Amino acid sequence: MTVPSKTDHVDVLIVGAGPAGLMMAAWMATCGIKTRIVDKRGTKIFNGQADGLQCRTLEILDSFGIAERAWKEANHMLEICFWNPDETGAIRRSGRIPDTIPGVSRFQQVVLHQGRIERFFLDYIESKSPIRVERGVLPTKLEFDESLAEDSDAYPITVNLRHLSEEEATPKQASTAANGSCVQDGLFRSNLAADDTAELLRTSELNAKANTEEVVKAKYVLGADGAHSWVRKELGFSLVGDSTDYIWGVLDIVPITDFPDIRSRCAIHSANSGSVMVIPRENKLVRLYIQMTTTEKIGDGGSRADRSKITPETILASAQKILAPYKLSYRKLDWWTAYQIGQRVGTNFSAKERIFLAGDAVHTHSPKAGQGMNISMQDAYNLGWKVSSVIKGLSNRSILKSYERERSGIAHALIQFDHKFSRLFSGRPAKDVMDEEGISLEEFKDAFEKGNLFASGTAVDYEASKIVAKSPEATNGANGVSAPASLEGSKTTPAVTSTQSLASNVKVGMRIPSTKILNQSDARPWHLQERLPSNGTWRILLFVGDVSISEQKQKMETLCKSLSGSNSFLKRFTPSGARYDSVFEVLTVHAAKRTDVSVLDFPEVLRPYDELDGWDYNTIFVDGESYHEGHGQIYETFGIDPKVGCAIVLRPDQYVSYVGPLEDYETVDKFFSDFMIPQN
Amino acid sequence: MTVPSKTDHVDVLIVGAGPAGLMMAAWMATCGIKTRIVDKRGTKIFNGQADGLQCRTLEILDSFGIAERAWKEANHMLEICFWNPDETGAIRRSGRIPDTIPGVSRFQQVVLHQGRIERFFLDYIESKSPIRVERGVLPTKLEFDESLAEDSDAYPITVNLRHLSEEEATPKQASTAANGSCVQDGLFRSNLAADDTAELLRTSELNAKANTEEVVKAKYVLGADGAHSWVRKELGFSLVGDSTDYIWGVLDIVPITDFPDIRSRCAIHSANSGSVMVIPRENKLVRLYIQMTTTEKIGDGGSRADRSKITPETILASAQKILAPYKLSYRKLDWWTAYQIGQRVGTNFSAKERIFLAGDAVHTHSPKAGQGMNISMQDAYNLGWKVSSVIKGLSNRSILKSYERERSGIAHALIQFDHKFSRLFSGRPAKDVMDEEGISLEEFKDAFEKGNLFASGTAVDYEASKIVAKSPEATNGANGVSAPASLEGSKTTPAVTSTQSLASNVKVGMRIPSTKILNQSDARPWHLQERLPSNGTWRILLFVGDVSISEQKQKMETLCKSLSGSNSFLKRFTPSGARYDSVFEVLTVHAAKRTDVSVLDFPEVLRPYDELDGWDYNTIFVDGESYHEGHGQIYETFGIDPKVGCAIVLRPDQYVSYVGPLEDYETVDKFFSDFMIPQN
Repeated sequence: MTVPSKTDHVDVLIVGAGPAGLMMAAWMATCGIKTRIVDKRGTKIFNGQADGLQCRTLEILDSFGIAERAWKEANHMLEICFWNPDETGAIRRSGRIPDTIPGVSRFQQVVLHQGRIERFFLDYIESKSPIRVERGVLPTKLEFDESLAEDSDAYPITVNLRHLSEEEATPKQASTAANGSCVQDGLFRSNLAADDTAELLRTSELNAKANTEEVVKAKYVLGADGAHSWVRKELGFSLVGDSTDYIWGVLDIVPITDFPDIRSRCAIHSANSGSVMVIPRENKLVRLYIQMTTTEKIGDGGSRADRSKITPETILASAQKILAPYKLSYRKLDWWTAYQIGQRVGTNFSAKERIFLAGDAVHTHSPKAGQGMNISMQDAYNLGWKVSSVIKGLSNRSILKSYERERSGIAHALIQFDHKFSRLFSGRPAKDVMDEEGISLEEFKDAFEKGNLFASGTAVDYEASKIVAKSPEATNGANGVSAPASLEGSKTTPAVTSTQSLASNVKVGMRIPSTKILNQSDARPWHLQERLPSNGTWRILLFVGDVSISEQKQKMETLCKSLSGSNSFLKRFTPSGARYDSVFEVLTVHAAKRTDVSVLDFPEVLRPYDELDGWDYNTIFVDGESYHEGHGQIYETFGIDPKVGCAIVLRPDQYVSYVGPLEDYETVDKFFSDFMIPQN
Repeated sequence: MTVPSKTDHVDVLIVGAGPAGLMMAAWMATCGIKTRIVDKRGTKIFNGQADGLQCRTLEILDSFGIAERAWKEANHMLEICFWNPDETGAIRRSGRIPDTIPGVSRFQQVVLHQGRIERFFLDYIESKSPIRVERGVLPTKLEFDESLAEDSDAYPITVNLRHLSEEEATPKQASTAANGSCVQDGLFRSNLAADDTAELLRTSELNAKANTEEVVKAKYVLGADGAHSWVRKELGFSLVGDSTDYIWGVLDIVPITDFPDIRSRCAIHSANSGSVMVIPRENKLVRLYIQMTTTEKIGDGGSRADRSKITPETILASAQKILAPYKLSYRKLDWWTAYQIGQRVGTNFSAKERIFLAGDAVHTHSPKAGQGMNISMQDAYNLGWKVSSVIKGLSNRSILKSYERERSGIAHALIQFDHKFSRLFSGRPAKDVMDEEGISLEEFKDAFEKGNLFASGTAVDYEASKIVAKSPEATNGANGVSAPASLEGSKTTPAVTSTQSLASNVKVGMRIPSTKILNQSDARPWHLQERLPSNGTWRILLFVGDVSISEQKQKMETLCKSLSGSNSFLKRFTPSGARYDSVFEVLTVHAAKRTDVSVLDFPEVLRPYDELDGWDYNTIFVDGESYHEGHGQIYETFGIDPKVGCAIVLRPDQYVSYVGPLEDYETVDKFFSDFMIPQN
């Protein structure tokens, strides 16, 4: 081991290059933040692992321009079929529901394995920045000078990094996504994509640096290093919760079967042999989650059951029993594992808002609902823009407190969901209506339907804070679950109050819904969310209403006079020399007839002029009928009266900060003045 | 110059790597044909040039998996605005129509410059095959031993190739797309995309091989080498037609203007200063086609006007006069040119069906309607699968005659369209209804609307031939235009007759329309065309109707008995050892309720079994309501009675060969037996 030879200074150090770490790196790449990202493993993963993609996750991937790759490669899972014992005890199909609730998003839940998502992020990060994942790099020491936490110029965190040899950096690929405990697995790599081969070859480059050590000083650190998080342990934080006795086997196979619904998601409860969940995947694969025990444990281990006796053969045998009289076999096995459900949440998500934890480092749960990778990425999606904004000197550090509150709320909601879902799924089906201990089909189906809204990711509802100007009477917290009382200290309150009724379906604290609008200048239809890419800017959405009515036009002009004033928040908080839309982007959606107005009829602040490019033709939209794709009816969908209108403030992550009267400039100014830093 | 040192043997040699040549190479890459493609220029082009993409072209690009890249990068041009002089002589907007007729395709016409399309093809070809474009390679000698034309094993064509130096291979980028004549141009490369930079660097590799010469012996040659085609001249064929006196200037600029419709396609006729066509493009660019003369010529040249006096400044000045009182200027000029409209068609498209011509080598016309690149690619799209099929020994050479007949018909239709369109566009607007020499707004708008159907590319209607089993009474030829009488010798007749009435909207000779269907096994909606990728296979589309009716089920089973027989055409014409769907793919669309049946209810020949993969879950579809994307109503849309059904045969290029009764196996067998070669 050599003595550390150099000290590097970075704004952000990310530990762990799984979905959460890569999402953070994607934000940093987008916002131009000096960042390093390290992972102790020598390569990314290529098969197995988490594979469900929520609607909301696809919306987020789309905001970075990478959803279409996922959408194209993924298996689209449209339908859930329920199979239950009939009166003779044989399984039969008892119902079908859509896998995604129609209308909640322009995307539907799809299935694609984690390694591909990582590939899309790696390509994105490479295209946007010099940031590259450094593999085979192990952090060995972490020091945090808390006294410097509030000093913007300081690098209060010091981390030692050791470069591993190829051998050290190549652990056997193993199932750690669920809760960090694995037995063994196959590694067939039938899923290996052409664009991943370069990655495999690169591992041989590791040895050049092997056994060197260096010191990195960072302003911020993210621990996205999984269920066994080193960062979490260094901070002395822990995961709190239980593991159950249920043991599940997982097979990723190309099935040969006469079971008719093998390409649908299926929840199969046998009378006496346990349950199977079928998840059809890409490349003809099907994932089977197979219940290996009902109440007893296998082997004679302690409180954690002994899973070493489980093999693909024993898992298949269990599946065959559950699926009988249908036949099931395979010739291709891509991956397999066995796990025990553990449900735990981190005690803390942050140390002084300088070191953060995300993903499996702060929540573990069962994989069957396909939530893990999604919630992990969404943790980092919530955090990235906040950290960037503070590092760039645009916002003060007070906004960072919202990370822990918002995401610990979600983590607790997730565990509640998972707890209920797992119990239902692992339980014995009711024999008849008199069987009170068994789980009735109705109870199960009902829970599934409710669960689907949670599982879509679109129901997340952040509580009031400096950056969520929720009315006091609004319900708080994600899906009704708030951050735990132990985190009370990080609670903040908004400087202003929204008028939610002006846009009754655009809930403050939730992500903005989406429907189609037309570009005024060229009649092209866009989904509103497509105009909200994740680039770090706040959006002021002006629903100016029907501007052919003179009152509406007057309100718009009054507002625009303030907006274009030399002391408006648009100018005060935008660095001089920066482009007019680099901190705030003003987007207008009107409700007049498109052919009655032109872009040039709108005040210039709504369609700014650039010396080289002329007027901006991409900021004025209309609620109108498209030539080929129908009518989005955004005013009706959003619950906005075209004769009243409203102003909406969106965070850079598409969550709604504020809804208020169109003409009320002052409140919006006050909202931003509470946490943004005047420039110049 | 060195003496040719080696002789290479290839199945296909393609001369020219523009859109037509690359389309041909894409087919060869897909079908695994030994191919070389050479181009005398050192790099592909990066700006200027053709830029309109028809609906049909996008459908074809999608069949190779590359439409989404074009769709994402392109500007979507939704609307055409007409501007004409009002009673005071000032221009004003007189009408709006959709740029693409709603409903003709799942795509709409978009705008993206040729260099990007070439990039997508290059990436596709690289991903599928070892074929690489060889740049800076000039053919110098062509010999064709016609006596070997009908010998399948022969290489009747000998071509000498000379490798150029970097200097020789770098002509000034110039506008040759229109009709091969250019003046000069700018070259600002503001459009240069990140994925094109490697291409630029590679030119320096040319010098290693410079001035060497080699001999290539080929079974087939395609001349896709532009308006000045060397291949055409070597064959002694010519282009026949006229050029007009109209001179047009073209500016690709980022406009600074108060003209309100600058982001729509506009046809602007001024009272006395000529016309402008506005084509909004990607990256804020707008292309302006500006009429420089009305009847007089500029300069004192002969029958071809002297364009050397034209500069960007003179073109802009003309545009400013036409657009007055609106203002127009620019700070960014991407490219410019001036051209005179020439309208010519090749006398021959083929020499003995061994050497073929495609693209500008056989048709030139005005660029304004955005047709050139499309028709060129579609030439090669028509040819590629036929040549592959013959080279692989699946079809006999008789099918190759259809190339010349089908594509010369299209070329003549194109020239007729262009002639009419250009006259209207260059003509003087009528002053009032009494002004018989002027062109009335109504006449113009009407022509535009009719032209839009042609311009969509979906109206192409191939005449009866061995591979188009059209009923004798059906109208013949593309848009009603047949191949000229001089090509009568290449006419062939089908062995069977279709029953068009069984699918009244699926016209034999036209590309199959598309609407959504659901996969029976997983309820996923697909556009029918998405299930018809260009991979060289023929498709048998079985509209088996409502199989819950026993008569329909009986018809299906009768047919399937023949299809699965050991002597069925599926088996006779498929090489032994090849996959069951490598020559014919059988796709079934039923009209029963999806939840009433399962994939396993259909005869096995419709969902074949594979030892490793089990049953095929991607061949049975249903006409049903999707969970999230509506109902395609394919039976109604196609004019098929669910109580009758039908069988449809599709060529590998998605054109309809045959429509007949579902239960009539014999006619389909006879159709294929007429030109396919028994294997084994």
